[in-house]
Amino acid sequence: MNDVARIAGVSRGSVSNYINGRKTRPDTQSKIEKAIKSLNYVPNATARALKTSRSNYVIFIIPTVNTPFFSELSYHVQLELKKFGYKMILCNSNSEPKEELEYIQMANTQKVAGIITMSYADIADLVSPDIPLVSIEKKVSDNFPIIISDNYQGGRLAAQKLQKGGAKQLLFVSKSPVKDISSVRQQGFVDYCLEHHLTYDTFLTRDIPNFIDDFKDFILENKIDHAFKYDGVFSDSDEYANAFWHLLLQYDISVPGDVQIIGFDAARTYQRQPTFLSAIRQPIEQISSEAVNRLLLQLPHPEQHSQKNSITVLPITFQQGVTTKTKKQ
Amino acid sequence: MNDVARIAGVSRGSVSNYINGRKTRPDTQSKIEKAIKSLNYVPNATARALKTSRSNYVIFIIPTVNTPFFSELSYHVQLELKKFGYKMILCNSNSEPKEELEYIQMANTQKVAGIITMSYADIADLVSPDIPLVSIEKKVSDNFPIIISDNYQGGRLAAQKLQKGGAKQLLFVSKSPVKDISSVRQQGFVDYCLEHHLTYDTFLTRDIPNFIDDFKDFILENKIDHAFKYDGVFSDSDEYANAFWHLLLQYDISVPGDVQIIGFDAARTYQRQPTFLSAIRQPIEQISSEAVNRLLLQLPHPEQHSQKNSITVLPITFQQGVTTKTKKQ
Repeated sequence: MNDVARIAGVSRGSVSNYINGRKTRPDTQSKIEKAIKSLNYVPNATARALKTSRSNYVIFIIPTVNTPFFSELSYHVQLELKKFGYKMILCNSNSEPKEELEYIQMANTQKVAGIITMSYADIADLVSPDIPLVSIEKKVSDNFPIIISDNYQGGRLAAQKLQKGGAKQLLFVSKSPVKDISSVRQQGFVDYCLEHHLTYDTFLTRDIPNFIDDFKDFILENKIDHAFKYDGVFSDSDEYANAFWHLLLQYDISVPGDVQIIGFDAARTYQRQPTFLSAIRQPIEQISSEAVNRLLLQLPHPEQHSQKNSITVLPITFQQGVTTKTKKQ
Repeated sequence: MNDVARIAGVSRGSVSNYINGRKTRPDTQSKIEKAIKSLNYVPNATARALKTSRSNYVIFIIPTVNTPFFSELSYHVQLELKKFGYKMILCNSNSEPKEELEYIQMANTQKVAGIITMSYADIADLVSPDIPLVSIEKKVSDNFPIIISDNYQGGRLAAQKLQKGGAKQLLFVSKSPVKDISSVRQQGFVDYCLEHHLTYDTFLTRDIPNFIDDFKDFILENKIDHAFKYDGVFSDSDEYANAFWHLLLQYDISVPGDVQIIGFDAARTYQRQPTFLSAIRQPIEQISSEAVNRLLLQLPHPEQHSQKNSITVLPITFQQGVTTKTKKQ
């Protein structure tokens, strides 16, 4: 606090007022904010909790816990929060708006330090204005920061990698209807194909839980002996890409010899091991640290929206697994 | 409440006293408990919360969120709790005793309805005596119920299935040191092999995060051209079994043609799809419902230990994937 006061050229009392959410003059406030940024200063959670009667718990609302992406993300969000003395409470909404609203109510009454959400419900109006909130992947309103991967470039990069591995007949597989971030990934893939005169088709399963049967039918229809019509497959999801891969193996189609496959997320099923699937990797560690940073930046004055209304787009990378070739063969 | 009073042959007031934790005569209490069990009656969470000032949140402490087993279990525990009006708060301890103790402290101060734990810390003495607790997989003390799968039978069943598929040279793979429930699974496997005169070896990787390299070396040492020394592999973990499978494929060894593989857990990586790996399936839905039932049974009188000190062992099953044969070929 002394450092902030010194750099800002204001009194220690003004910094204390600012940090604890008491009224400060606009020019003083601006000086303090600049000083805080220059120092990368983050208020200590426990000290704050003592002074402001807020707890040091941050709620992380996810739509499901049972996919590697959300699991790995939860793991890293917790690690990031821990660095600053905050603890994570994981709330799984099962994609039900009603559940999400109940967690928001809990956040309001329990005076949590903040909320990070991947909510699909329209929750923005229900969050108490003094609770910091950050959204990952989905815009909840104009008033909250959002952190998102560069899904469009992810689609482009997948097409490029398949091309570099020598694939000539590309295929995009997903589930119908393709919407939200999935459609952005698809668009990136399609644009790259069109720009580079690559032939591509699209196969979408029906919107049913057991989409495996649709994949099976599609593979059988497009297979003659051990040869498959397509030699490069991209999916907007690791789940579909993995399922497609294992089905091709069952029909004795060689991967990556005859067909290369790229998924999306490259999330680790087990913390210790990268996946065997080649995939576009969402920057899970960076998403986590950005989300936590954006949350903590709101702490002094969540109601002033100074750090709100921002969109942070993070770069994706390609993770080489065993389902793509490293070069044309 | 009227039904309970009628069946128990006591007044409605006595039932109310019992449910809200007030003193009741031992014989009255015993009658009420029998009536409650016969009715499968569980107190409504919200009604209880209003009367007892306890919240309707149950804390579920897990050592990591980033494995399919814990993810799928969390999913089902939440579903079970929801049936009775309780909400789950998922606390990931990252296997650190200190983290677990902090969550227990939170549970004590926030007056949660109960705790379900897969804790590895010695937490028993720290839980407030009026908070119901159930442990999954690990005994935390003599005072709390524990729910566990039949790990020994799981090991036996794996050996039996490999034998039925025609395997003659069996292999157990795991990570050194093999301990706790893993060693029980191993013992079941070994006992079955000895009783049925099956040849088996054991390979344990070093205790390092990247055990894949050890698997690779082992496979290369035991492979001549496309033939592998073993034709039946069992692991106490889906993770190792999956890794072994994919490495064999990379070295052009046919699965299940030449080598059959069985893992343990058969946990779903994605909620919608069973795994492709053949594996001993832990009864995740049943573990969840038993854990929640045991917790709710403690609600009226957690301090009286009447439902405590129990061990519930649940039966395992075999899940046929694509890595084992259905019969000798």
